[in-house]
Amino acid sequence: MNSQLNQLRNEIDAIDTQLLELIEKRLKLVSQIGVVKSKEGLSLHDSKREAQMIAHHRKMAIDRHISPDFFEDILKRLMQESYTNELGAGYSQVKSDLGKIIVIGGRGKMGRLFCKQFQRSGYLVEILEAEDEPFQPEHFLEAGLVLIAVPIANTLEVIHKLPKLPSNCILADLTSIKEKPMNAMLNAHSGPVVGLHPMFGPSVKTFVKQLIIQCDGRCASEYEWLIKQMRLWGSRVEVCKAEEHDKAMSYIQALRHFITFVYGVFLLQEKADLELLMKFSSPIYRLELAMVGRMFSQSPELYADIILASKENLAVINRHLKTLSSESSSLLNEGREHFIHHFGLVTDYFGVYAELFNSETTLVLEK
Amino acid sequence: MNSQLNQLRNEIDAIDTQLLELIEKRLKLVSQIGVVKSKEGLSLHDSKREAQMIAHHRKMAIDRHISPDFFEDILKRLMQESYTNELGAGYSQVKSDLGKIIVIGGRGKMGRLFCKQFQRSGYLVEILEAEDEPFQPEHFLEAGLVLIAVPIANTLEVIHKLPKLPSNCILADLTSIKEKPMNAMLNAHSGPVVGLHPMFGPSVKTFVKQLIIQCDGRCASEYEWLIKQMRLWGSRVEVCKAEEHDKAMSYIQALRHFITFVYGVFLLQEKADLELLMKFSSPIYRLELAMVGRMFSQSPELYADIILASKENLAVINRHLKTLSSESSSLLNEGREHFIHHFGLVTDYFGVYAELFNSETTLVLEK
Repeated sequence: MNSQLNQLRNEIDAIDTQLLELIEKRLKLVSQIGVVKSKEGLSLHDSKREAQMIAHHRKMAIDRHISPDFFEDILKRLMQESYTNELGAGYSQVKSDLGKIIVIGGRGKMGRLFCKQFQRSGYLVEILEAEDEPFQPEHFLEAGLVLIAVPIANTLEVIHKLPKLPSNCILADLTSIKEKPMNAMLNAHSGPVVGLHPMFGPSVKTFVKQLIIQCDGRCASEYEWLIKQMRLWGSRVEVCKAEEHDKAMSYIQALRHFITFVYGVFLLQEKADLELLMKFSSPIYRLELAMVGRMFSQSPELYADIILASKENLAVINRHLKTLSSESSSLLNEGREHFIHHFGLVTDYFGVYAELFNSETTLVLEK
Repeated sequence: MNSQLNQLRNEIDAIDTQLLELIEKRLKLVSQIGVVKSKEGLSLHDSKREAQMIAHHRKMAIDRHISPDFFEDILKRLMQESYTNELGAGYSQVKSDLGKIIVIGGRGKMGRLFCKQFQRSGYLVEILEAEDEPFQPEHFLEAGLVLIAVPIANTLEVIHKLPKLPSNCILADLTSIKEKPMNAMLNAHSGPVVGLHPMFGPSVKTFVKQLIIQCDGRCASEYEWLIKQMRLWGSRVEVCKAEEHDKAMSYIQALRHFITFVYGVFLLQEKADLELLMKFSSPIYRLELAMVGRMFSQSPELYADIILASKENLAVINRHLKTLSSESSSLLNEGREHFIHHFGLVTDYFGVYAELFNSETTLVLEK
């Protein structure tokens, strides 16, 4: 029996070698596509072609009685790796007569990421840091784009200390709040202004499919090329008003980060045994705990700045405290019925999303 | 240029077809292995063979300048699909002279899952429901195992109403709290007693790699076969005391569920625009929001029962409220310094786990 098992295992190993060979060929072909696209100025991410390919491959899988979800997973992982590989090819440059790009904070993590993207797209990039202040006005004479990429806490100060920029120079920032820096930029510069918020961390391997939020300031037609350039990197760019952005971020960033922070503090206060918690975790709790731990491996200043960025954030945190407090005492007093009633209201509120999220997370947890 | 792109894309499509063919062959080979293992009474999950195979394939990938993490991901997804496919093969039966297994609550979701596993392993399974009470004592004369799989809220009542069981019959439950049902089972039956807590939902496709917690009650040697049977299904079984289990679950289940519940209630109260939140989500918030939505697509009674299962749960929820309240007012009064100080304490508490969790979640988010 054991020899039968070994025989089967050897056959599997042989197949895995063939798989690796095919994957190698496929990655090479995709990187050739990257070169062609780059020459042609085409976006690295073609969602229509991707959707067609996936639909076609799902059908193929079904014909062979193989789970289409499973084959789609394999393909998506292959495509993701392809995007990472494509990076080396460089990107085509949307605006060739820009002059130089000055990135203030270009040695920070997020600044460095954008510098690299611009350089790979053929732009001349110059890096300044907040410490280089007072900024020399002559540095800025040839600038076509000044990008503020310093930590939130320094953003406003750096904007205030900018020298006079050329009138057609674009002033932009990457801060994760938008209303205050946008106002500061509009005051500091009379030319084109745009606020950007990259919704990803500096550790991403590719810009493909990453979301960048765009808040229009002034003279949008002047920075159209910049938006086109980011789309060419494969990013998704969504436009919204600075005020709307900040309101959504109170829930998306400030409150979630604060709740996670408090959960960490609480586990510490309780002296909870992390090893035991890990050992007894279901996949979903394991993932939740990992997302808590993830926060505490990062910079406390960054989180402090995001949470303390606006008075509205603190107001949201305060209102959430009231909800937690009232639900806790309801649980003690009215117990089960109250919980079930409120639960149902939230289920209605989530509507179709509840089911969608359920199947989505089931997929994540299986992996 | 367009024809060059089409040519490359056709080559990729051809490779994808070959990939699917290889994958099909591989799945068939693995299901043959499943048959051999089943005949031999070997566990479906061989972690040593898996580790060796992955190490070998990582090396192969490196030799070809392909990311080893990437190839490991592909292999793991293949293995996961293989486990799901192996299910059809049936399992070998550890104890052939057991008599019948009675699953009370066998038509519930979790009950049904265990019934299927036992049946596929060759056991005779009989299903009763809480509504079948008063239970007929003659039904239980031939029982070798009585498994309580009713909702938490009914568990104690069902145990109290059990007739006298044969003295060597095993009494076991699947409740997600352990102290109370274990005490009830030890009182209701003088023979072997074991408490089980499957740390997964009833929607899992396979028992392979799933965690089941085992709390010993009485006469452990009598139910050794049951533990062996679950390990043969590929599950990981961890032993712990009922009290220790319940304490850990206060943090792992009750508190996390309550915090998630309150976040849902809060978004509803704030009339937050879910579509907007989704549109502006970073991958990590998208995942967090999905985990909130997931909860509200499930049964409110289940969550109410888990949260209200013990006084200790309510005490933990209350202590957490105090922490949230004190951190909120510190944020308003002492602001940034306090936050950064406490953040650092938690980072120390998480220790090596913080970094581990960071790389783990980065992998999940990339997918």
